[in-house]
Formats: sequence, C-alpha cells, structure tokens
Amino acid sequence: MEKHELVIIGGSAGGAQVAICAQEHHNLDDLVVIRREKKVMVPCGIPYIYGTLDDVDSNIMPDGVMGKVKIKVGEVVSIERGSKILTLSDGEKIGYNKLVLATGSNPVQPPIAGMDKKNVYVVKKEHSHLREMAKAMESARHIVVIGGGFIGIEFADECRKRGHEVTVVELLEHCLRLVCTDELCSRVEGALEERGVNIITGSAVQSIGGTDEVEFVQLDNGREIKCDMVIVGIGVVPNTKLAEDAGLEIGTMRGIEVDEFQGTSDPDIFAVGDCAEKYSFFNGEPVAIRLASVATREGKIAAINLYSRRWRNVGTIGGFATVVGDMAVGAAGLTSAQAIKMGYSVVIGEADTVSKHPGTMPDAQPIRVNLVFDRRSGKLIGGCACCAMTVGEMVNLIIAGIVNGMTMEQLALFPMGTHPQLTASPLVYPLTDAASDALHKAISNV
Amino acid sequence: MEKHELVIIGGSAGGAQVAICAQEHHNLDDLVVIRREKKVMVPCGIPYIYGTLDDVDSNIMPDGVMGKVKIKVGEVVSIERGSKILTLSDGEKIGYNKLVLATGSNPVQPPIAGMDKKNVYVVKKEHSHLREMAKAMESARHIVVIGGGFIGIEFADECRKRGHEVTVVELLEHCLRLVCTDELCSRVEGALEERGVNIITGSAVQSIGGTDEVEFVQLDNGREIKCDMVIVGIGVVPNTKLAEDAGLEIGTMRGIEVDEFQGTSDPDIFAVGDCAEKYSFFNGEPVAIRLASVATREGKIAAINLYSRRWRNVGTIGGFATVVGDMAVGAAGLTSAQAIKMGYSVVIGEADTVSKHPGTMPDAQPIRVNLVFDRRSGKLIGGCACCAMTVGEMVNLIIAGIVNGMTMEQLALFPMGTHPQLTASPLVYPLTDAASDALHKAISNV
Repeated sequence: MEKHELVIIGGSAGGAQVAICAQEHHNLDDLVVIRREKKVMVPCGIPYIYGTLDDVDSNIMPDGVMGKVKIKVGEVVSIERGSKILTLSDGEKIGYNKLVLATGSNPVQPPIAGMDKKNVYVVKKEHSHLREMAKAMESARHIVVIGGGFIGIEFADECRKRGHEVTVVELLEHCLRLVCTDELCSRVEGALEERGVNIITGSAVQSIGGTDEVEFVQLDNGREIKCDMVIVGIGVVPNTKLAEDAGLEIGTMRGIEVDEFQGTSDPDIFAVGDCAEKYSFFNGEPVAIRLASVATREGKIAAINLYSRRWRNVGTIGGFATVVGDMAVGAAGLTSAQAIKMGYSVVIGEADTVSKHPGTMPDAQPIRVNLVFDRRSGKLIGGCACCAMTVGEMVNLIIAGIVNGMTMEQLALFPMGTHPQLTASPLVYPLTDAASDALHKAISNV
Repeated sequence: MEKHELVIIGGSAGGAQVAICAQEHHNLDDLVVIRREKKVMVPCGIPYIYGTLDDVDSNIMPDGVMGKVKIKVGEVVSIERGSKILTLSDGEKIGYNKLVLATGSNPVQPPIAGMDKKNVYVVKKEHSHLREMAKAMESARHIVVIGGGFIGIEFADECRKRGHEVTVVELLEHCLRLVCTDELCSRVEGALEERGVNIITGSAVQSIGGTDEVEFVQLDNGREIKCDMVIVGIGVVPNTKLAEDAGLEIGTMRGIEVDEFQGTSDPDIFAVGDCAEKYSFFNGEPVAIRLASVATREGKIAAINLYSRRWRNVGTIGGFATVVGDMAVGAAGLTSAQAIKMGYSVVIGEADTVSKHPGTMPDAQPIRVNLVFDRRSGKLIGGCACCAMTVGEMVNLIIAGIVNGMTMEQLALFPMGTHPQLTASPLVYPLTDAASDALHKAISNV
C-alpha cells in the first residue's frame, strides 16, 4: 500500500497552496495531491471562459505551480482515521501521516421547479461540465442568469460580449447587495445595462418552464422571460461528505469545523478552503465567505502548522472585486448594514475623485470610495470602491487598513505615494479623503 | 491693513492642502493663500505637459479644490514675527494670526560650465517658464536630459513621444538607483531604450558647449553629445529665504526645521512641503524626500495642529512610482543599500508573477516585487515593484505594511482579495509571495 507523509485531497486553490507551502517551509518531498479532475480550473477564471478567454482550456491552473508534488487523479471515498488510511473509488488504499482536506464546494441547487430541464446549468468547476456549458451556449440566443452576485454579473457580462441576449434575475433589491453600498450597486447595474444586459432585481425565479429544453423562466410576480439557456450562480455549499462520514465535526455554516490553526477535530487532519468553516475577523462568528483568496491563505496556515501550531488564522475579512466593461468595483470587510447588525455604531466616510491627475490626463476615470468605521474605536471595518483597473489593489489597501486596525485618524494621514498616470492626486487621494470625511463626521457627531 | 486668521504662503500641493483641511477641521473662513503664480501647476504633472497632455494649460491645479479660500497673487518678501505682519513686494502689509509656510523648492542649478547657454533649462514649476520650455522644444531636435531620477526619465519618455532624439545622462550607475533595485533599474532602462531613448549612466556632464545656444554637452570622459536643448532634473533645494530672514531655524537638509507637529521654532508659524525639513520614519534623521504626496500629508498635519497639538508626524517614508510605456515601477521606504547603511541587517524577499490570472488573460503582464525586511524585528522597511498600471496602489500597499510595522509572517498571511482581471492569482500574489520568500530565507539564515 502506498503511504505518504502528507496527503492533500483536492487540487484547487486551497489544496495547491498547501502543496506549495509544505514544500517551501518543511522541505517535504513525500506529498501527494489526490483530485478528481485531470485538469484543474482557475476557479475565479470560470466566467471568463465564455467571453474574454473563449476556451475552457485557457483557464487551466498549471500543475507546475505546485512544484514537485505527486498528482493522483481519483476520488477518495472514505477516511479510516484510526489506521490513517484512505480508500479511493477504485478500491485503492493510500496511507497518510498528515491529511489536508481541500474538497471545495458544490454549487447551490435551488429548489426551483424545472431545474432539471435541458440547458439549465449550475456552475460546477469541472472541465467537462464547463465544456458542455460552452457547447450549449453556442446555440443559445437568450440566456437568463439567476443570481446577481459576482459570478452572476461576470457571466452576464461575458455572455453579452459574445452577443447573447442576457437577463440577470436577482432576489435582493440590488446586484452585489451583500458587499457594496446601494450607490455602487446601482453604478454596476447601470454599467451592465449600458452594455445591453437586462437586470431584474427584487424578484425570485418561481419556475423554469419548457417541454424538454428550457423555454422560459417564470418570476414570482408571474412575469415570464423567454430564454433557451439558464445559468444559476447563487452560491456554494461546502463539500463535506467525506469529513462527515469520517466523523469530523461540522460547523453551523456547514463547513468542516476548524480551530484557529486550520486543524479539525482530528489532530492529524486539517481542512482549508471552501470545505472548511470560516470565522469572522470582526466577531469570531461563522461566516460564509468562500473565495479562492481565502482558501490560499488557509492553505498557507495549514501547511505551516502541520507539525506544530505556529500560525494563527485571525479570522476571515473577505475582499472582492470585479470588472464590468471599463468600470471595476471592489469591497472588503463589513458593509454598514452588516456592521450595524453586529452591534457596531458606524461612521461612513466618502470620497469622490479621479483616477489620474491632473483630471485632464487621458483615460482619467471617476473614483468613488466608501469606508465604514467603528465609531467607538475609530477603526476601519469595511469599505468599497469603484474605479477602473486599480480597484483590486485599492481593495487590498482597505484590507491592510482593516487587518492592522487603522483608525480614521491614521488613514486620514496615510502616507500614500501618488503619480499622475497611476493614482488620484495627493490633494484628493480617495482613501485619505474618505477617512478625513469620516473623521469630520465623527467629530461633528453626524 | 488687511489681517487674516490664517495666512498660507505658497499655493502648491502643501499650501492647498492646508487650506482644505483648515476649512474642514476648524471651519475657518478667514484664510488667504498668497502665491506668486496666477495659475498653479500640478507639480507631478509637469513632465506630462510635453507629451501626454501637450499643453501647459492642461496641467493647472483647479483653485476650486481649495474651497472658499481667498487667493492673493503676490510675493511675500518679509515676515515681522513680533507684530505678525507680512510685507509683500509691492509694499502691501498683511497681518496674520497663524502662518503656514509652503514656499516649496527651487530646482538645483548644478555648477556646470555653460548652464547659462540658451535652451538649457532647469525645471521650475512656473507657468511662464514651462511655456518657454515648450516653445524651445518645438524647434529642438536632440534633447539631453541631465539626471535619471523620476523627473528625468519622465521628461525623456515624454520628449521621445514627441519624436525628439533623447539622451539621458545619469551620474550613478543606474537610473532610479536611489529608490529601486539594480534589477528594476535595468528593466526601466531597457524599456526606455526600447522606446528609443539613449541612456548613459555612471557619467557626469562636465560642461555645456555652444556659442550662444547649446550645441553639445561634454561628459567627464571627454565624450561630446550633440544637442540643441538640455533639461536638467537633478533635484531641488528648499526655498527657505523668507524663513531664514525671519530668523527661523534651518535644518541640516536645508529645510525649515519643524517639530513632529509641523511647527517651526515660532509657535504661530508652521512649515509644510518641500520647504520644510523631513525626518525619516525609520530613524528620525533628516531626509531629502521632497514629494507632493509628502507635502499634502504635512499640510493636513499642520492644519489640524494650528490651535492645539493633536496630530504627530511619525516620519517620512516616501512612495514613488512612474510609467515608461506600458511598464510601471514604484518603490517605497528603504532600499537594501540604505537600510544596511542605517545599520539594519536585512532580508530580501522576491516574487515574480503575472498581473492577471490565468496568465492567458489578455494584457497579462509580468510583475516583480522585491521587499526589504529588518531581520531582527521581521518588519517590512522597504520595497519596490514593477508591473503595469496597478503599481501605484501596490506601492501604497507596501507603505501600509511599513507604516503598520507588518512582519514577514503577517505579510505572508496577508488576506488579500484577488480577481482574474485585476490582480495576480491568489496562489502567487506578489506581496505575500515575496514575504514568504523572505521568511524562508530568514529561517534558513540565507
């Protein structure tokens, strides 16, 4: 029987990061990644397969990134924790000393009548499934996207790029409502509409109709939308069957319960990524923030802690960003609504500026930043931003403020660097300006 | 005699920021900015006048940004500190209660023979001077730029865009040597050369020759470079005459001495921006980092502290960035050479990655990041980065790490957000990867 020092089940972002860091920090060479797929998809790249990349095979995570790890394609069906032996679906048995579960998540299958009709797809991360979607899309004319979160609007924008008629149906009153201010949500919706995407918010899909193939979706208000393809992107559920069967504890958000070192209730088994429970940076409560960037961080923590508990996961903040046309939006931490629900008294700082300076520079674009501070401590707890292609790193700057507990005073004096072509003017730099605005409001008790 | 609660001398970045913040935080409405120029140039935008903007008037800082401040165009020639009265060059007298000096800097005039020839220009921030340069440039064929710092390479790149033959002469062995690693400097030089700019490093200009107009520059090795225009960009000296004449203390880097609240040796007079002395964030020693972004931060500090000492300047870090073609570079804090000179034992972390993910995304570009850590404390003390248009905010993220004293462990676990079109992959995010590399080296004692 094959036996390995470290076995990682799952080869997407979290599992791959464990493999990288285990080699880097422990000089491990006896490690194997067992995964179901021959080719692993870049998870966040999936919507881009359908427009920007235009090919499933352009979205493959190169195995080389993991270094000299052994890769085994197969499905683990059980974990015998006492003897530390895994059984694969073909009956093969593999021993482990340390085990990391990175089994990911599955798309939510909403209980909508007609979900089983032809050309209705949830978004699985599997090569064959995504290829089938691509094929179905070739003959689709009108696509309905159910869910106006990041994945939904990215699919909508990409499908629109291919010339499809596209309608997004979102249950909440705005797309991206869970991470952005209403004002930024409206900007995103406006940008999508400008690009020809139909947006319907505050509506649930009641049923999916058609004889064999999908022909329409029916909304809760009775309205019917004709379509010949439906893409459902309304979230994921942790894939924990293997862990549950092995008797590991499962948390309230349905992830595998882990301690602050990514350890499970078994001292030799760790869990990372979408399959693992996450806890809020702000109050330690379980949260459903399942992102590749969160998975890789957990992968690093698990890898470092394999043999002794060294690095603590101080909690999940969550940083998101996306692009619609030439407008990008992003968010991190808590929205003011989430913060108030948690018991914070909040102060909001806002800034409107321009991405280059002077504003006459070619391609200068508007920037809007909205920061959420805890009134009592003055600390930054969330924010969102809208502005061209620098928004990804701007979100990371907001995260740096949050993770370091920076106050509105500290951020108002943040010693940023600036450049005419790369940033806003130092006189109206958005993060310092928004912090200054919050400070002013806090002092004036607005 | 006119008298004002607050008088600000100088209307560039630092002075303007004082005006903004004094209104915002003290509800001041009796304030005046006295400046020599009718129209104020965006300081960092100056090189872009000559290519990207193509017009001096496109680079004007709008007065509106300062709110309802009174603007007086004139030159203050003396400060009578006892009676708190200023005298202008036309004899007018103006009283003040609080005074902020934001008199800026003047370009260094190197002691090179021939500096007085026609078509030899230092870069003053004055509208008329810059207009004259623009005019001279119209008939120039070959331009020599003396100085390969940020301003020098920006002028070189912009002039090249207009089709001029351009040669940069830099005294040190690399352009940007004072802020970047040799490797990044070489990339910048390579990008400039690819765009047709001639680069000569490790050479001093001995003299500027010609009968009336400049005809050539002669290097210290005897080589002559034919040219019909010379632009000198080798730094600035603080403009402190007014302060010196008024008996205020001057520091070792030739700026007006200020305490940690931006106060001068007179309790009612503050100094901000290029005219004020700066002290290193790292060891408190005077440093010559004169940037608009530093000036605006000092402006905020001075404004807040006008009536009571509330905000402390914890020292100057310095964040720089620039663009050559579609390659951008930036840096913050200490280079390893500077750090070693200060007595640090350093660990360098490096990362090479790609700006988008998967790497097959259109317009994905290489990223290189180099971080400098203090080996003893593990804290980040500097870094530089090279990568397309997100480098400005990436430098700011490095600054956030420095200002918060983040260690290599904390940065290796930095909870960044990522997106296919906006950032590198979460598996190879450059800042976390470089921190991880440093950590690995520190542990292995490399």
